[in-house]
Formats: sequence, C-alpha cells, structure tokens
Amino acid sequence: MQPMKQQMINIETNGRGTYDISDNIQSVIEENKIDSGLCHLFLQHTSASLIFCENADATVRSDLEDFMARIAPDGDPVYRHDMEGPDDMPAHIRTILTQNSLTIPIIHGKAALGTWQGIFLWEHRSMGHIRKLTITLQD
Amino acid sequence: MQPMKQQMINIETNGRGTYDISDNIQSVIEENKIDSGLCHLFLQHTSASLIFCENADATVRSDLEDFMARIAPDGDPVYRHDMEGPDDMPAHIRTILTQNSLTIPIIHGKAALGTWQGIFLWEHRSMGHIRKLTITLQD
Amino acid sequence: MQPMKQQMINIETNGRGTYDISDNIQSVIEENKIDSGLCHLFLQHTSASLIFCENADATVRSDLEDFMARIAPDGDPVYRHDMEGPDDMPAHIRTILTQNSLTIPIIHGKAALGTWQGIFLWEHRSMGHIRKLTITLQD
Repeated sequence: MQPMKQQMINIETNGRGTYDISDNIQSVIEENKIDSGLCHLFLQHTSASLIFCENADATVRSDLEDFMARIAPDGDPVYRHDMEGPDDMPAHIRTILTQNSLTIPIIHGKAALGTWQGIFLWEHRSMGHIRKLTITLQD
Repeated sequence: MQPMKQQMINIETNGRGTYDISDNIQSVIEENKIDSGLCHLFLQHTSASLIFCENADATVRSDLEDFMARIAPDGDPVYRHDMEGPDDMPAHIRTILTQNSLTIPIIHGKAALGTWQGIFLWEHRSMGHIRKLTITLQD
Repeated sequence: MQPMKQQMINIETNGRGTYDISDNIQSVIEENKIDSGLCHLFLQHTSASLIFCENADATVRSDLEDFMARIAPDGDPVYRHDMEGPDDMPAHIRTILTQNSLTIPIIHGKAALGTWQGIFLWEHRSMGHIRKLTITLQD
C-alpha cells in the first residue's frame, strides 16, 4: 500500500459528443505503477459527464445522442435556464442522468474494464471545451 | 495515511426539491483534518438521491424538477406501486436515474468541486423527511 | 488497515429483470472479515447495470421496467444499432441511465444499506447472461 495518488488532466473536446478516454486513464495507471487497486475519476463540470459504454460500434453512441435529444431537446421553450443558449439546460439534464464520479478496479496493472467497455467523456455543450478530470489512484 | 473515518449525518428536508449540502460535506472534511484523499457519500434511501449540479442559477434545479415531472409524472395511472401516494413511484424512478453513492476527491483540504458545481440532496417525496447520509473519508 | 481485497463473482441471469444481489455482497464482506470500510462494485458489461432499489414491494421493479420500456422501447425504428436484436440498443440506454460502479459503506461488518434498500443487478437483455462483478473491499 502506497499513499493515494492524485493527478488532474485536461480533456479537450470539439463540441457535443463522446470521447474515449480509456487510454488516457490507462496511461496514468501505468505511470503510477499501480498493480491492483482502484482508480477514481471525477469530472469538475455540470455540462459534461462520464459513462461506461460499448466501444466497438460507434452507432451506439450516436443512438445515445439521439435518445438524449428526444428526452431533453435543445431549445425547448419549457426551460427557464437558457442563458448560454439552446444547449445550456439540456447539458445539465444529460449530466445528472449520467455520471461525474466513477470508480474502476485495477487488476494486474490494467483498468479492469469489460471486453467491450470503454470510458467516455460525454461533452454535452455544442461548443468545444477544456474539461478537467481528477484521477485518484489507490492500491 | 490514517484509518478510514466514517460519520453519519441527518439532513432534514421540507419536501420535494434540491438541498445544497456542499457546506455540510466540507465541514466534515475539515473536522477530520483531511488534506488530500477521497470523500464518499452514501444516502440510505430509495426515494431521495444525490447529484452534482450547477449551484449558481436556481432555475437549473427547477428545470430539473420539471424534467423529472415530465418523464415520470406524479399519479400516472400506469404505476402499480402507489401505496404511499401519487409521488411514491416517481420518487423511486427519480432515484434510480440519479445517484445514491458519490465519491469526491479532496485536494488541499477541500472537496475538489468545479467552480459551479455543488453537491445536492434531492428529496423526491412531497413531504419532508429526515435523510441519513453516511460520509466516509480516506487519505 | 489491511491491503485492499478484490474478488470477482459471476451472477447468472435468466433474462431481463432485476436480481437482488445484496446477500452475495454481504457474504463476500463476511468472508473477508471487514468490520468497517468501503465495498466497491463494478459490473463489466454495457447491457446490464447496478441499482439501489426498494426491496419490499416487487411492483417497484416492474414499474421501473415499464418506465424504461416507455422511454427506450424495444425495436424502436430510430435505433441504428440493432445487430443483436430489438433489445440491443435499449439495453445500452438503460445501462447509461443507471450505474456500473457503486460504492457502499461497511459498518459493523455489514453493507450499511438503508432499511428498504437492496442492491440489484439489472439485466437489460431479453436472454439470460452470466455477468461478471468485481468486488473490491477496503478497511
């Protein structure tokens, strides 16, 4: 058991969509030489989130986009909060329906994801952003 | 590294709505003098939940209430489970769509939330309740 | 404080539905003699998930099934991803709306669940599967 290790990384997005960050996480685990333990991810934003998702067929993620667009449409006149545009409130809704805090087991030096499981940052705003992710490693 | 610390606090609600508990959590971190580590929150209920949400403009949270009321309306005749009233089943649906277990990194003695990010307890029942929250701190 | 303990268990499902795994988790806590600490669960799949849910009245879970069927219907022609059948894309949607990673406090040798709170594996596919769950214990 070593002391807990914390690291903040920035993920740059080009606007709404899912970004596979599995390799970024795996690199941090390797740099810190963690063989078994836990990896905690925390995204410091309220208009972007984290999901575990199928990483093989990209249409899964486009269907997820469409699903969110159906249940929380951009520019819906029912929203009171629209200061930053038609995608402002939908971004908050999408965030609370998914996650900002995830923990993944580390086994034999690897994030122990399932065969088809990737870690994705989901940008919910139309414009690109730099998103801050805090990674905490424990063994 | 100190042994893990656990503490249970009660949060009193006045009925459906979001309650900012960020200060309560920060106080527990300070009382326990944790400089860096992880803070885990666990809410022992199935009709109230935890979210990270924008803390600047309160209309975000009223829009979230409306969103939930649209997708899981109170008193919908499709529900079989309505023993405790029209808000009974919607409260369970809202809970499973959000979180009961959250982990937040602690950096320099603070819950490392984003600039606009608060921790909210979301009461989903119409009437007020006393909600039990278990806080576990690790460094 | 002992070193972290990790164990993988298989949960066999008979198709879509919720499976109470609270006893399985409690057994692993007892086998490992953890008195106080944290129990982390990670489900290595993208078409099944974990929820905390009311464990007293089974109609809660059938109402949750119906809710998901309403917001993400099987066989909806809007889905592009349908390789594995009409329940393929709905299973991914249901998964991202719920959880794959949960942490539960352990107090006095027990998973400190609320009175009516159970831990359920939610199988989202029509057919039965063997689902891999990684349990990590810390004290």
